[in-house]
Amino acid sequence: MSAQNPDLEIAQAATLLPIREIAERAGIPEKALIPYGTTKAKVDVRAMEPTGRTGRLVLVSAMSPTPAGEGKSTTTVGLADAFSLLGHRTMVALREPALGPIMGVKGGATGGGYSQVVPMEDINLHFTGDFHAIQIANNTLAALVDNHLQQGNELDIDPRRIQWKRVVDVNDRALRQVVIGLGGTGQGVPREDGFDIVVASEIMAILCLATDLADLQRRIDAIVVGYRRDRTPVTVADLQVGGAITMLLKDALLPNLVQTLGGTPALVHGGPFANIAHGCNSLAATRLALSLADITVTEAGFGSDLGAEKFLDIKSRLGGLHPDAAVVVATVRALKMHGGVAKEDLGTEDLDSALKGTANLARHVENLRKFGIEPVIALNRFPTDTEAELEGVLAWAKEQGFRAALSEVWAKGGEGGKAVAEQVLAAIEEDSPSYHPLYDPADGIENSLRTLAKEIYGADDVVFEDKAPAQLRMLKRNGWDTLPVCVAKTQYSFSDDPKALGAPTGFVLHVRDLVPKIGAGFVVALTGAIMTMPGLPKEPAALRMGVTESGESVGLF
Amino acid sequence: MSAQNPDLEIAQAATLLPIREIAERAGIPEKALIPYGTTKAKVDVRAMEPTGRTGRLVLVSAMSPTPAGEGKSTTTVGLADAFSLLGHRTMVALREPALGPIMGVKGGATGGGYSQVVPMEDINLHFTGDFHAIQIANNTLAALVDNHLQQGNELDIDPRRIQWKRVVDVNDRALRQVVIGLGGTGQGVPREDGFDIVVASEIMAILCLATDLADLQRRIDAIVVGYRRDRTPVTVADLQVGGAITMLLKDALLPNLVQTLGGTPALVHGGPFANIAHGCNSLAATRLALSLADITVTEAGFGSDLGAEKFLDIKSRLGGLHPDAAVVVATVRALKMHGGVAKEDLGTEDLDSALKGTANLARHVENLRKFGIEPVIALNRFPTDTEAELEGVLAWAKEQGFRAALSEVWAKGGEGGKAVAEQVLAAIEEDSPSYHPLYDPADGIENSLRTLAKEIYGADDVVFEDKAPAQLRMLKRNGWDTLPVCVAKTQYSFSDDPKALGAPTGFVLHVRDLVPKIGAGFVVALTGAIMTMPGLPKEPAALRMGVTESGESVGLF
Repeated sequence: MSAQNPDLEIAQAATLLPIREIAERAGIPEKALIPYGTTKAKVDVRAMEPTGRTGRLVLVSAMSPTPAGEGKSTTTVGLADAFSLLGHRTMVALREPALGPIMGVKGGATGGGYSQVVPMEDINLHFTGDFHAIQIANNTLAALVDNHLQQGNELDIDPRRIQWKRVVDVNDRALRQVVIGLGGTGQGVPREDGFDIVVASEIMAILCLATDLADLQRRIDAIVVGYRRDRTPVTVADLQVGGAITMLLKDALLPNLVQTLGGTPALVHGGPFANIAHGCNSLAATRLALSLADITVTEAGFGSDLGAEKFLDIKSRLGGLHPDAAVVVATVRALKMHGGVAKEDLGTEDLDSALKGTANLARHVENLRKFGIEPVIALNRFPTDTEAELEGVLAWAKEQGFRAALSEVWAKGGEGGKAVAEQVLAAIEEDSPSYHPLYDPADGIENSLRTLAKEIYGADDVVFEDKAPAQLRMLKRNGWDTLPVCVAKTQYSFSDDPKALGAPTGFVLHVRDLVPKIGAGFVVALTGAIMTMPGLPKEPAALRMGVTESGESVGLF
Repeated sequence: MSAQNPDLEIAQAATLLPIREIAERAGIPEKALIPYGTTKAKVDVRAMEPTGRTGRLVLVSAMSPTPAGEGKSTTTVGLADAFSLLGHRTMVALREPALGPIMGVKGGATGGGYSQVVPMEDINLHFTGDFHAIQIANNTLAALVDNHLQQGNELDIDPRRIQWKRVVDVNDRALRQVVIGLGGTGQGVPREDGFDIVVASEIMAILCLATDLADLQRRIDAIVVGYRRDRTPVTVADLQVGGAITMLLKDALLPNLVQTLGGTPALVHGGPFANIAHGCNSLAATRLALSLADITVTEAGFGSDLGAEKFLDIKSRLGGLHPDAAVVVATVRALKMHGGVAKEDLGTEDLDSALKGTANLARHVENLRKFGIEPVIALNRFPTDTEAELEGVLAWAKEQGFRAALSEVWAKGGEGGKAVAEQVLAAIEEDSPSYHPLYDPADGIENSLRTLAKEIYGADDVVFEDKAPAQLRMLKRNGWDTLPVCVAKTQYSFSDDPKALGAPTGFVLHVRDLVPKIGAGFVVALTGAIMTMPGLPKEPAALRMGVTESGESVGLF
């Protein structure tokens, strides 16, 4: 086993159960199983009878991430295996990895060590093609919009006010701002445009929130692609292509079934990127898991300020979910970075800095309490952690009155997650969880944003600048200002400044644009310098990747 | 059965055999079968023993297509079912449909009536994800090139001389000419660029010509992405990302197994678009079929001047294939259009015009003879054809000494293809096929193009204009002028003018650009006004598409 790449090697060495056996374990009938190879499948939920049951829902969040890594997916998977080992009928519901960041920095996004979802290579690469389907559905719509302009523009769409952007699942900064339609009258109408990454597509959000095919088409028809010269919106329904776009997504809407290394059934379906999107796996997958399992463990991207907040304010509200418990993943290394230690010094024992960094962790715990849930801190052990550091952090949590336990799932799989699992069960039993969303969208988007900024981020106020004031007026004119808000914000800080670690206060949140996503049913608020198309680093992870002659991947991790 | 859409309804009404049974029928062992659902699969050729056998290879071409449609895929599928009915162990090897034109004009590309490959909906939509994999491999490479520019440009790539373009599987004319990298120093290096359709990607050609994973990587490493300021080429190997790109294609390299409506095993794999690419299904699939079946029926895109020529001069030469017979599909309707009849008048009996249009058909027959193969004309019956017309055309063929037979596969499936099948068997027995390519690339690309222009297209000469003269000098400087040439040319005419129907003479072929595809191993010659990114029509086929609540597609045909 090489030191560089143990996750891939552990995954490749594992013996997987046939997906039919996993389906049987989960209670999915064979007639509803559409196999993709022998270890992954789509689940045709239309072929299943309702079970009438709803299990417990455990949401895994984390402290603000650092380059040191916090291991949230690893904890999610290991925790599910721990519940399985404790005798509970368990399922995991995870988001799918995006290829762009895999080729950039991440190299893989399926957990790590002995807590992974497998087949790891397939899930990290093309999997069952969902993101590709979203990409081509998105881009087919874009081509239909530009074709409408070219062929006479009967709907009078203003080429300067087209909101619908093209997407690729590639970190491609050179596509952020482009000019298209050059070359003369036969080559389209010239206009400024830009590409987003696939996960930022409204179609990704729609797929993750749709309850069935009819709801999917209804939402797609409601997408606003742009505005007329008189500023009235133009929708997909106006273009009459909602049917074609829905058809391209009919298979992608079905949840994907795989397994954890511990043999727990796992649904891996839908969109990552809680910093620029709503960042949760699909509602269809979560609901399917809840109807089958006694305990469903799911993950929302990044910290309580991003994925968890959107899980609780958008997905749960819309989908009628009632999370019973939450976990906040923390590491000594991340605590030290939030306490001021530089990345290169993380190997040195430094409990004082770790304790200083608990300010960040504590705010995430307090945030989840504001939704009526008492979370459990999972302190995810890394090989470089000392006993004094681990004990010191756990002692701090106890002093604060926070539930906490050590997680050793990377090295030990489900066995290493039992302590956290027992705390989660205790929280459900003893802490009377009573989930409620934080804000009422009916109070208007300015109020929703102020509530989030003050209650969750710790800001003093919100400023609307750049395009935001005009967009706010536009939202009000169209009656869209009472939709929930999906904040695009850096994941590295509670504030919109990625360098403000710890638990910053005394700042304002800068909202620079507000983009209505009427099909998804929310308004995206772009804050700070967050971008909806990432770039590649100087040394992309792709440089280390390859494939052996027998077809095994190299360099995913 | 609705009149608009009988192909989809016939396909949806058919009872398909389980793909395991089709595999068994084909001689593919279960261990080599990777199922995608129950009626399609990838074949892991690495898990199979060589059979040591090579069956007969029948190539289906056609006269120059017209908007009236000639039914080439339909004939290919029906002919294979006819061979099966006649007791021969048969396989079909077809190209995959591209989504862009499906959403534009075509609506589907899997044959028609009772001669289709199925599951029709899946094959026409995302199938097993091959084109999506090619798209993201292509675009990941593009992002890595632009990232190299952004991150210091160690290789000194000239931003004005980047050859590698991005692709989408969408007919999107507004992306033909674009400016990317706008918005300041953090957003990439501004430069002119353009998008092609996926099938025009060099990666599509490479995937279709690669013999195994190692050959795939060798070819990808050889791709020229652009040129330095000193005009020397920069390759994927220079960027050190060939491994990552190959990894993204490792599953796409495996042939896809489906079935015809007659239950004949069908391999559907790799690239269409013989007008802008080499237009043949993958070498891997053709070789697999030949090793398993006594007769393999395969199709090359458009007429003898495009797909068939490239099949015989590029794919067969490179892959060591020896086609035994060829079929030229013709219809009375297409003959009438080549004879000068307007599309709206095709319903009126007009044998004289049809006979006038035989000039086009005759040249296709003569062209195939130049490769040492005596083709069979398959006269594909349409409901509007009169007996007098059909008999008149068959009588003309007999007078000319051409093999010909009526094909009724649309209405009758394999039964309707027996007459053509028997002629094909007779041609193999009696006409001593002795395939050879037409030109020797070692004579230089100017000579190769002159030979094609004069012998196949009927031109008097070739002119090199626009970018072509400078590119020709560049090819010679790099020693690339002795590669085979892949001509991008309109499919509607032997000439580069789509309006010159029939069998034009007295014209010159205009070569406006020459693009080296070193990974694929050929040079693309762009002629006339042919574009590598199509556009959508005023009324795209997408307007008629949709999906029912139970998940069945509507509007594919």
